[in-house]
Amino acid sequence: MNIALLGFGTIGTGVYELINLNKGRFADNLEEPVVITKILDKDPNKKVDPSDHICQIVTDPELIMKDPDITIVIALLGGMDFEYKMIKAALENGKHVVTASKAVISEYFEELVTLAQKNNVILRYEAAVGGGIPIIASLKEELKINRINEIKGILNGTTNFILSKMTENAADFGDTLKLAQSIGFAEADPTADIEGYDVSRKLSILSTLAYGGVVRDEDVKKRGLADIRAIDIEMAGDMGYNVKYLGHSKLIDKDKVYTTVEPVLFPKESMMSNVNSEFNIISIAGDIIGELQFYGKGAGKDATANAVVGDALYIINCMKEGTYPSYLPMDKPLQKLGNSVFEGRYYLRANLKKEEDLEFIMKIMDQVNGRSHIIISDKTIFFNTGEVHADSFDDMVTEIKKKVPDLFYARIYE
Amino acid sequence: MNIALLGFGTIGTGVYELINLNKGRFADNLEEPVVITKILDKDPNKKVDPSDHICQIVTDPELIMKDPDITIVIALLGGMDFEYKMIKAALENGKHVVTASKAVISEYFEELVTLAQKNNVILRYEAAVGGGIPIIASLKEELKINRINEIKGILNGTTNFILSKMTENAADFGDTLKLAQSIGFAEADPTADIEGYDVSRKLSILSTLAYGGVVRDEDVKKRGLADIRAIDIEMAGDMGYNVKYLGHSKLIDKDKVYTTVEPVLFPKESMMSNVNSEFNIISIAGDIIGELQFYGKGAGKDATANAVVGDALYIINCMKEGTYPSYLPMDKPLQKLGNSVFEGRYYLRANLKKEEDLEFIMKIMDQVNGRSHIIISDKTIFFNTGEVHADSFDDMVTEIKKKVPDLFYARIYE
Repeated sequence: MNIALLGFGTIGTGVYELINLNKGRFADNLEEPVVITKILDKDPNKKVDPSDHICQIVTDPELIMKDPDITIVIALLGGMDFEYKMIKAALENGKHVVTASKAVISEYFEELVTLAQKNNVILRYEAAVGGGIPIIASLKEELKINRINEIKGILNGTTNFILSKMTENAADFGDTLKLAQSIGFAEADPTADIEGYDVSRKLSILSTLAYGGVVRDEDVKKRGLADIRAIDIEMAGDMGYNVKYLGHSKLIDKDKVYTTVEPVLFPKESMMSNVNSEFNIISIAGDIIGELQFYGKGAGKDATANAVVGDALYIINCMKEGTYPSYLPMDKPLQKLGNSVFEGRYYLRANLKKEEDLEFIMKIMDQVNGRSHIIISDKTIFFNTGEVHADSFDDMVTEIKKKVPDLFYARIYE
Repeated sequence: MNIALLGFGTIGTGVYELINLNKGRFADNLEEPVVITKILDKDPNKKVDPSDHICQIVTDPELIMKDPDITIVIALLGGMDFEYKMIKAALENGKHVVTASKAVISEYFEELVTLAQKNNVILRYEAAVGGGIPIIASLKEELKINRINEIKGILNGTTNFILSKMTENAADFGDTLKLAQSIGFAEADPTADIEGYDVSRKLSILSTLAYGGVVRDEDVKKRGLADIRAIDIEMAGDMGYNVKYLGHSKLIDKDKVYTTVEPVLFPKESMMSNVNSEFNIISIAGDIIGELQFYGKGAGKDATANAVVGDALYIINCMKEGTYPSYLPMDKPLQKLGNSVFEGRYYLRANLKKEEDLEFIMKIMDQVNGRSHIIISDKTIFFNTGEVHADSFDDMVTEIKKKVPDLFYARIYE
């Protein structure tokens, strides 16, 4: 059986090594040989392994889409438009598709699933959420018996690496981001990671599957991480917490969906608090099974390639047995209600510019439910609030930011 | 399709509710009705739900084994001999079997798998390890691409509950065991839990699957938990650790298997340290995927029933599609080499009976590699050793115990 690879970057190389160079155990249980025969790359001079006389680099996607011998297309191009176009073309040409693209799956989920069904082919995307963590398959399994009503997770390796390093080195955000970029843990344009788009795409995919209706990236209330400073990590630490960047969604009353991506504080002695560097964790809660958590490498060459090749194996198995998976419904109308269901105590740090800023902030913060603990140190003020609803607190902070833009805040998960 | 249930205890009731009373989503995706028609229980007066006019309680297993309409037998009797006999009879009578029995699967693994294959039926046992955690299915998936070379886990809810409560209440082992018994978290005879048999059975099942050769309960070097005292939890806490009861196995050089079940110390700020009460966690390490961890309820009615019914659904699906799973090989000859590969620093507490015990212990402990830190408080002595191999340390402690039986020790996982 012949496979084509679209994209020969880091993950693509990992997939190529597992399939064509027989790293791992991929080939052990196959009845007929499976091989990558064509790799699409814009650079025609890219080379496959010298021992590999079967696989060729092509620059024209038509050579793949129109090749009747190619059964599975693995799309690892990255980006959005071209990857989407390629996945669509592959499905329309009757190829099974495996992709790791959270961007494309999140944006075109229903359309692509419908297209796959129409063309009687299989679309798989295990690596799109949680990299090497088998979360999509596990979620689908649990949904056979459970109603899933909550998902939360540390879903972005870049920001988790930055937070881990900031904690370890008492370093600032900007410097740590540069470090992450220098060793390939963050992209040159880190927006998708540090502004929460990457997490919200993953969260929207999981929520769509779990809740049976489309939850889109733009339904997710997200807040970036870039306002954090070394002093926030230090203060959180003194209070017994670590800062984590969390995606969280809840289904309430069957059709009300609440979603958020934001920095939060977890007690140092908790599972979530101890997920470090490029590792991810995903928690799902079902009405029968209770809470399940899945932990593993959320990114990286081999772990992600493992998930991609696992999907390819799944398709190979389906073809052998002549069975096709049924797709989960995603046509339930859901109300997307932002983050108003989330509540808790907050940590807030603001750096005052002028004398009168203090009174201004105090006045607004006085509206906060419960007594707040306040520390004033030179021109920096730290609050520890009582219980507040997330949307009210966000509104309040928007008010404060008009005069005092240099601030960071995070809800405390007890 | 008709199912028979063997045993109508806690888990059995949970399974009955999911299938016959349609709790959860079990029935949502079935094409034909699936129902439990017979339940084997030694008490003929046990009652099913009043609304259920299909299911009957039987006391004679032959009424199930010889019933041609029964396709799947779910064995939840507990114990060893009768459960084994029933599973065997069901397989021989051409019934698919689901069981949650770690004892029977661990003891008769190869025989029962062979018997299932011979009779062209399916044997499933997801709930036998980790209760509601989908570890068997996940392990099998990862093995398609990975060589798994390490498994570790907190696999026993009873001991984990006891340790959590001891930590929370600064309570002693005996009192906490009684508390656990009074609320149904420990059995009247707690031996299997507190002496490590339950963990070693689960570990032997996972190791057999992962390493491709039979690892038996008796191959696992196990050490009970009953020697622990409140002071050990307190001292560990002061040192920054929590005590956990860990099962751990490693495969080295393709055929050397090392296994251990023992109390260990994890840093408070670690994943393992924060798995509390009846929750379990299982970590597997593959050569491609890296480390994966799975967390969830290791016991309890609904979570375990969820796993059992998931197995039944799997079988129903296989039957619908006319496909049968291939079983993992378990015929590789493996060397079982005890716990000699494990090493680390140790915590040891001993209560001296006589003046001269001190010198006696000191002399033996002086053989320990590295400088050891010692605290002597009245008649209690605490050691913190350098790096030692587990087998050497076990031998040394055996020596000490001859004169000083009241002691507890645990290796430190850094």
